[in-house]
Amino acid sequence: MSDLIGIRDEMRAFTEERDWGRYHDPKSLVLALVGEVGELAEIFQWLPAEQAMELAGAQPLRKRVAEELADVLVYLVRLADVLDVDLGEATRAKLHAARGRYPVGDVHGQAPVKS
Amino acid sequence: MSDLIGIRDEMRAFTEERDWGRYHDPKSLVLALVGEVGELAEIFQWLPAEQAMELAGAQPLRKRVAEELADVLVYLVRLADVLDVDLGEATRAKLHAARGRYPVGDVHGQAPVKS
Amino acid sequence: MSDLIGIRDEMRAFTEERDWGRYHDPKSLVLALVGEVGELAEIFQWLPAEQAMELAGAQPLRKRVAEELADVLVYLVRLADVLDVDLGEATRAKLHAARGRYPVGDVHGQAPVKS
Amino acid sequence: MSDLIGIRDEMRAFTEERDWGRYHDPKSLVLALVGEVGELAEIFQWLPAEQAMELAGAQPLRKRVAEELADVLVYLVRLADVLDVDLGEATRAKLHAARGRYPVGDVHGQAPVKS
Repeated sequence: MSDLIGIRDEMRAFTEERDWGRYHDPKSLVLALVGEVGELAEIFQWLPAEQAMELAGAQPLRKRVAEELADVLVYLVRLADVLDVDLGEATRAKLHAARGRYPVGDVHGQAPVKS
Repeated sequence: MSDLIGIRDEMRAFTEERDWGRYHDPKSLVLALVGEVGELAEIFQWLPAEQAMELAGAQPLRKRVAEELADVLVYLVRLADVLDVDLGEATRAKLHAARGRYPVGDVHGQAPVKS
Repeated sequence: MSDLIGIRDEMRAFTEERDWGRYHDPKSLVLALVGEVGELAEIFQWLPAEQAMELAGAQPLRKRVAEELADVLVYLVRLADVLDVDLGEATRAKLHAARGRYPVGDVHGQAPVKS
Repeated sequence: MSDLIGIRDEMRAFTEERDWGRYHDPKSLVLALVGEVGELAEIFQWLPAEQAMELAGAQPLRKRVAEELADVLVYLVRLADVLDVDLGEATRAKLHAARGRYPVGDVHGQAPVKS
């Protein structure tokens, strides 16, 4: 299930079957997204930075990480859906803009500073 | 671009071209994800709950929301990639588990309480 | 214990007694803060906006909310401490600046739009 | 201004003078808190973990970090206030409970795993 449209349709059906649409106003969905991002952060918080990839990429953390990543994605897709935003198209546009904003020659090896 | 694999491949190329892979350890990517979720939250924070869908679904907010949703997605996909997690498969498994955990007959019209 | 300096000193002693200082680098503490904010968000996510104050202000939610608010505060105070930032002074300066930035006559009854 | 009660009273006056109380329902305040935590995360996201304390503790980042820490605190204090939660007392109780939950002899040098 690597297609955003398929995930959106599954979430839409899941929500309608349970009559949960009343809970899915945008502010509530952003809070739900925050809750799942928080669970992701908890997995990583005390891992030494240089070992985090190895530790979280192996069991038992790997399973938890995959579940939390999925949780974030489903709320993100659901939020886009209730706002009638085409998430795939928005992503295509954003990546296109990022290529223009950070030309390879200007930023090679240097992360941009957030201002 | 509604395919997670395509977005993953685009982000991978984008990162490699700029030699930014050194910045993309998991803890840093979770923080980047948090930053983008924070920008999404800022758009919604003072909107009246019952008008949020209408206000954020229309310009000028609509454009900003779409951009922030895309930003969250690209960091989420990138984080899954560096951890070698198949995000689509994780999502399929999570939705399957959610159907078992929240049977339609038990939870109809009633959001589950987080415990 | 309403004094930030007292909380800072308690957290410092708590950390040293357990030899947990090695875990308290800034990125890890920000992630811990995010985890606690996520738990706070989870309490509120599905509450109807207009009933959230009443529902969260009464038991059983009241106790959970108080605990999560405290968790956010202790990590915030700890983060300021490891960065040697005087949180009380920073707050005084920020409130002073906010009074200048949002003159009463300009913004009365109208929340500022985040740009 | 290291006293939580003083900060609460300042924020209360600041809000009332601007008639912003209508915006300060709990869900909106949690979203505002998330926005500020996101700005904090953005400062740290690409800093190498082992240099983050030094880099963020020095100018120019030090000033930004102090401002964001203060922003998080004022929304946290405001949220506790609208819910009529005594944040200082909640923190005292939480630290007391943490001492009981993590006895020095059991956890020395070993961060607890979040479960």
